[in-house]
Formats: sequence, structure tokens, C-alpha cells
Amino acid sequence: MRILSGLTPSSAGIHLGNYFGAVRQWIRLQEEHDAYYFIATYHAMTSIQDATLLRRNQLEVALDYLALGLDPERSTVYLQQDIPEVTELAWILSNLCPMGMLERCHAYKDKVAKGLSADHGLFAYPVLMAADILIVRSSGVPVGQDQKQHVEVTRDLAMKFNQQFGEVFPLPEPLILEGAAAKVPGIDGEKMSKSYDNDVKIFDPEKRLRKRLMSIVTDTCGVDDPKEPEGNTIFELFRLVADDAAVAAMADRFRAANTGYGYGHAKQELFEALMDHFGPARRERARLEASPGEVEEILRAGAAKVRPVVEDTMAEVRRVTGLR
Amino acid sequence: MRILSGLTPSSAGIHLGNYFGAVRQWIRLQEEHDAYYFIATYHAMTSIQDATLLRRNQLEVALDYLALGLDPERSTVYLQQDIPEVTELAWILSNLCPMGMLERCHAYKDKVAKGLSADHGLFAYPVLMAADILIVRSSGVPVGQDQKQHVEVTRDLAMKFNQQFGEVFPLPEPLILEGAAAKVPGIDGEKMSKSYDNDVKIFDPEKRLRKRLMSIVTDTCGVDDPKEPEGNTIFELFRLVADDAAVAAMADRFRAANTGYGYGHAKQELFEALMDHFGPARRERARLEASPGEVEEILRAGAAKVRPVVEDTMAEVRRVTGLR
Repeated sequence: MRILSGLTPSSAGIHLGNYFGAVRQWIRLQEEHDAYYFIATYHAMTSIQDATLLRRNQLEVALDYLALGLDPERSTVYLQQDIPEVTELAWILSNLCPMGMLERCHAYKDKVAKGLSADHGLFAYPVLMAADILIVRSSGVPVGQDQKQHVEVTRDLAMKFNQQFGEVFPLPEPLILEGAAAKVPGIDGEKMSKSYDNDVKIFDPEKRLRKRLMSIVTDTCGVDDPKEPEGNTIFELFRLVADDAAVAAMADRFRAANTGYGYGHAKQELFEALMDHFGPARRERARLEASPGEVEEILRAGAAKVRPVVEDTMAEVRRVTGLR
Repeated sequence: MRILSGLTPSSAGIHLGNYFGAVRQWIRLQEEHDAYYFIATYHAMTSIQDATLLRRNQLEVALDYLALGLDPERSTVYLQQDIPEVTELAWILSNLCPMGMLERCHAYKDKVAKGLSADHGLFAYPVLMAADILIVRSSGVPVGQDQKQHVEVTRDLAMKFNQQFGEVFPLPEPLILEGAAAKVPGIDGEKMSKSYDNDVKIFDPEKRLRKRLMSIVTDTCGVDDPKEPEGNTIFELFRLVADDAAVAAMADRFRAANTGYGYGHAKQELFEALMDHFGPARRERARLEASPGEVEEILRAGAAKVRPVVEDTMAEVRRVTGLR
């Protein structure tokens, strides 16, 4: 099945919540599927209006995902702006898209509900997203629960297009991610999120990463008190990166009294496990970072691979709509 | 000065109101300006979702305007869809465009005020129009009074873009048309408009055109009654196409009593004057219609001429925004 997912470079620095909540799962999907992953630069423009930042974030996102295992041999990785035809398809779809459909979309609705003024880009981006999906005639879209709405908009627009102009697009299905962590806690115990500033960035320098983990908020249990591992932020994060034996051992140490084992020790264990778990990815990222030509070449090759697919779709779209 | 105007192929068949209200003036502008005229196919998609109709209308509009004097030697005539980059620029501008700016635009506002549901294309088209204007860095936009708003939106977006990313776009000025007829009456005496079904199409077959003129609504004055020419639909239309002597003569005949000159005679005079006035254009249109290869070649040459202009703009836009 052809699947497609976009990586929005609206911020740099992937964190544990991103990874265990979704990214790990959809990197795995490349094993079984004809996977297309694009860096959604046009989408990032809804929040970034700075050339240097936009360029840097694009590269950072590419580095993060390639280092974490996105494999250009098995999937197609490209920059959205190398396929400017998505904006043309988005225009065409806009003429089949009732305003109400976009007014109900979360990102826009939430902003307006907060009394903030929105730009047209934020309002229109579900149509661009539909174009991203449909232009490669993707049948599956790996999504978290909060993005299901976008796939629904895409299905609606594809259905309308097919009805009006003939069968051009398959109706994409949301691919709910199996085995994604429901909630990865941040350093304050709340759901990890960049916007709460409680995130732990996978590729932060060792020293900064360690400092970040040491600032995890805990209860006041002392080194000799027994502690409950379940729900404890340190333990919950450790569980994501350590093997079963190590996890069981930490749980035992938490529960035992008078062992002199405190949260500081647990944080140090967590740090070591993280460095261990992401060691290969961190080394790969450093290697890629030192050879930017390689990343450029991967993105160029990805664009070359997706180009005939896009041209095929757009030739048909233009023919059936009367543009050609 | 570089000027740009779009011809929307949302309907076929230019009428006297279109011509004397605007088209004649801006065809004249090609004498003094670096004029770009494009057939706005993407815009027509807001109302046409039928490939055959869209293709036919594009050709009809091209034929009408070329026959009426749009000269591919002196101006650049092209199809909007040959410059798909306008949709990319429209996306970029969307991220600088507050929703309120589009909510205030007439076409959308009027539709919603009538209680009709609008599609996103109708809502978004002022941004696409801004992209049309800015992508060729046009300094002037020939407009009627009712389109001034679009130039204002374009200026606002150009200003915001320049402020954010550096001086890329000139701020276009509306070019108010000199000598345009304020109101061309339709066959019922109301303002001529396709939507009132009171229009007289310049290129209708002779027989249908004559029949249309014969159905002009008049008062009940008989052949021997004196008649007031001013405000009389036949006379007002005659004034647009006949020379001064003929106009004065008709006015005299209207005012005189007992001459046996009735509205039927005046309509016949109007028909002959129209056939005379538009004779060369009608013959040129028939000639072009018989050689569709010539029109295609004109549009192809126009696209080739505008392409380097567009590529130059988009290279700069992509560089300053960080897309490249």
C-alpha cells in the first residue's frame, strides 16, 4: 500500500514524545509499505516567516528522521517545495471545498476560540494537506488520533473530485499507529510537548540532555523511602528505552526501602539508558551532519523518484478538469 | 509601465456592456504599456466544474479578445494554467493574509449575504488574483470601480511581503479606465449583464443578433409621435457604435413628428451600425476560428514570453522566504 506522511519543520529538535508517540511507528511502516515521507515546508510557512530559520529547520528535520531510521532506500523522502504542483492541486480542490468544512478544522477553530486572529494559510492548510496526500495517490495515511480529521477532509475532497470529474483518486484510509505510547510524560509529569517546554530532545548535546533529565520533577521521597515506580516520570521514561530486565530491576530498587537509592540515581540510570538506546542514531546524525551533501543528495533523489508519480496524477487532473 | 489584466472564461460571449464598459479601454492600453493579458482559467474554476465547458470558454474568450484587437505583437497573451507558479505564490501570500481581509471581499460577502454557501475557492480567489498581479511584478492594473478592492488586497499583501522578506514586489496601482461607458443599457433598459439575461453578444450570428435587438423594450410612442432620444435604449446603444453625424441624424428623426419613423426603424439602423462597427472584428474572429492552430500558437508564444519573468520572480521569492 502506498502511504504518505509529512514532517512539518515548524520547529527543530525531535523529542521523546514525538518519537514514542508516533515517529517510531511510522518509520517502521517503511518495512511493509511503499512509504512517502515529505518535509512539509509550505505548511511550516503558516508559522515561520524567516528564511534562515525555515532553511535550518528543514535540514534539522531531515537529519533527525534519517538518523532515527527513515531509510531512503526503502522509502521516498523529499521536500514539499520540490513538488510545487501540490499548490495547484490545492487550488483545484478548493473549488470543491465548502467553507464550513475548513471552519470546523481544529487548528483554525482553536486559534479563533482563543480570540487570536488567523491568517488564511492556517485556514486553508487542510486543503494543501489533502493535495499532498492525493497527488501521490496515497491509500493510507499514518496518523495520530488528533489528525484523523485531516484524512476525513481529504476523503471528502477526493470523493467530490471523483464524482465531478471521474475516478482519479483512491480514497485514503487513516492508518492508526499500533503500539504508539499513549502519553509520554515531560519533565514536569504532564504530556511531553514543545509548547509546554517540558520536552526532552533526543539529539541535544550530552551535557544539556543530562541536565534536562536531572530537572525532572519528582515527589519528596528520600533515598531510603520505598517509591512507587508506576506513574513516576523517571520510571515511565526509562521503560521506553531500557530492556525488560533493566526495567524490572529499577522497579525493584524503587520499591525497596533503606537501599540508599534515590531519584538522582534513577535519573542517572535513565540518562545512561537514553544515551545507549539512541547511541547509534546520535552517531548517525553526527555523521550526516558532517556531510550535508549526502542529505541534499537523498532529498534530490527522493524528489526525482516522486516526480513521475506527481506528473502522472497532474496530467490526469488537468485533463479531466479541462485545464489541458 | 507593466500592466496586467485577466479575462475570466467563466462565460463565453462578450457583450456590449463588457466591451464599452472596460475591454475597449484596456485593449487600447497595449499601445502605451507593457501589457500582460491572461485567460484566468483557474479563476473560472470557482464557477465551472466541467472540462468541456471550461476548454470551450477558454478558446471563446481568446477568440473574442484577439478579434477585438488584443494584439499578440504588442501585448503578452497567455493562459493562466501555463503559469502554475501563481498557485505557489498564492500559498505563500496566504500566510501573510489575515482572514478578515478575505471576509470583507465582495464576491464572497455577497454570496454569504444571500444565504448561499460558498466554496473555499471563491473565498480564496483574491489571493490568487494578487499572485497573478505580483508574479509578473505588474505596476498597474486596469480596473473598473468594482475591482478596486482586489488591487487594494494585492497592495496590502505586497507591502507585507516586502516588509517581511525584503523588497521584491512593486506596489501596483489601480489604473482607472478613461472613457469607459458608465452604463451600457441592456435590452430591458437595465444595466447590461449576462446575469440579467439582457445582454447583446457582439459575436452572435447575424440573425440571432438582429432578433435580440428587435426585442429591445421601448415605450409606446408610435411612428408619428416625437420621441426623446436621451435615455432611450436604442439611441444609447446606437451612440456607442455610430459616428457623430449618424447619431445627430437619429436624434433628429426621434424628435420630429409625423415622419413615419418608428422604433422598428431605429432598431434596424442600430443593427446595421453594429454590424458595421464590429464588421472587421467579426470577420477576424471567423478567420481565427477557422484556424485554431493560430490561436494555440499565440497562447504558446505568450506563455514562453512570460515564463522567464515568472521564473525570475519565483527564484527571488523562494530565496528570500527560505524555500531554496
